[in-house]
Amino acid sequence: MKYFSSDDIKTLDERYRALMINSLSGFKSANLIGTVDETGQENLSIVSSVFHLGANPALVGVIFRPHSVPRHTLENILATEKYTINQVNVQIYMAAHQTSARYEKHQSEFEETGLTAEYLHAFPAPFVKESRLKYGLKLKDHQTIKLNDTELVIGEIESLHVEESALLEDGYIDIEALDSIAISSLDGYHSTKRINRLEYAKPNKPTRIKLLG
Amino acid sequence: MKYFSSDDIKTLDERYRALMINSLSGFKSANLIGTVDETGQENLSIVSSVFHLGANPALVGVIFRPHSVPRHTLENILATEKYTINQVNVQIYMAAHQTSARYEKHQSEFEETGLTAEYLHAFPAPFVKESRLKYGLKLKDHQTIKLNDTELVIGEIESLHVEESALLEDGYIDIEALDSIAISSLDGYHSTKRINRLEYAKPNKPTRIKLLG
Repeated sequence: MKYFSSDDIKTLDERYRALMINSLSGFKSANLIGTVDETGQENLSIVSSVFHLGANPALVGVIFRPHSVPRHTLENILATEKYTINQVNVQIYMAAHQTSARYEKHQSEFEETGLTAEYLHAFPAPFVKESRLKYGLKLKDHQTIKLNDTELVIGEIESLHVEESALLEDGYIDIEALDSIAISSLDGYHSTKRINRLEYAKPNKPTRIKLLG
Repeated sequence: MKYFSSDDIKTLDERYRALMINSLSGFKSANLIGTVDETGQENLSIVSSVFHLGANPALVGVIFRPHSVPRHTLENILATEKYTINQVNVQIYMAAHQTSARYEKHQSEFEETGLTAEYLHAFPAPFVKESRLKYGLKLKDHQTIKLNDTELVIGEIESLHVEESALLEDGYIDIEALDSIAISSLDGYHSTKRINRLEYAKPNKPTRIKLLG
């Protein structure tokens, strides 16, 4: 095994360190965040930092880096308090990645990358038509993490759209069947292959594979 | 597409909602957190809530639910301020899942699940020997998210151990080559298959596949 001490990590080349440290948390979610500014100008950006925060209320967190590209997205969320999260699938991953280019504020990443904005059920922020699992959120909380000036944004899910075939009887959504992808480090894209679902674990009982109906 | 309004979500059966809402953020990381309490009693728990927070300083966040099983883990982190994060691979995913059973505090999940505790470079919390990418952290910040009483724990990486063959020239760690897995919803386990790495995106240039070495 290769070993890095805290000092080793601090003295690494910056780009090398970014790729390495971004690998450590494991596979990341791949999502596109859709917003508009106060004039209706659309913005779309890929993020790998969306995470589950709670089911009831249904809360999702996102981390924004201090001076990163999705800054326009963050500004729009703070201004309008509404945004969409759209899972990235295999069919659109290259267009999704392209949204991370440093476009000007007046440029719409929808137009620049060929993804399609759609407005659903009067929700004020744009969804990505090509995404097969997407939801609209209302901003609930926002704070700066003082350790590194990243921004934590928490939203509550207000409207959810999912391809019905992927929604199983027990509520589990088969995101693999939707061709949703996973990200590694800063630039790795992966499709998945289900190993198993496992039964709720209990002490003194062997781990069991969930048999699906 | 199936549509759920905010009210629809609120009136779902609790278990159904938990499985559904946990599917929405996308693929999640799979990690084991190793700790000891003040008497040296070891604890190990699987979490799907580890996320990257920053590369410099190297910071990682974890979310703990208010009354969940990893509560012993959270208590140990707050008491000792040291913990390890160990990526879960295909070879140990069932044992890793089994750590989520509600064992008593005096029971070690290492012993109960057959995973092996190891102590490396004098770091005071136990690593998982079977994990092929693992690191020790020092607690840097801790707060309660008031919206739902979850706990956000942030640590800085103090020591990193990774199989050398997976560490590429540019710092990217090929976690797929380490057989690291991804989680969907509460109980889905997935292996991955790389699609591509992509070059840093630039406006007005086509998205390009990164050609590796």
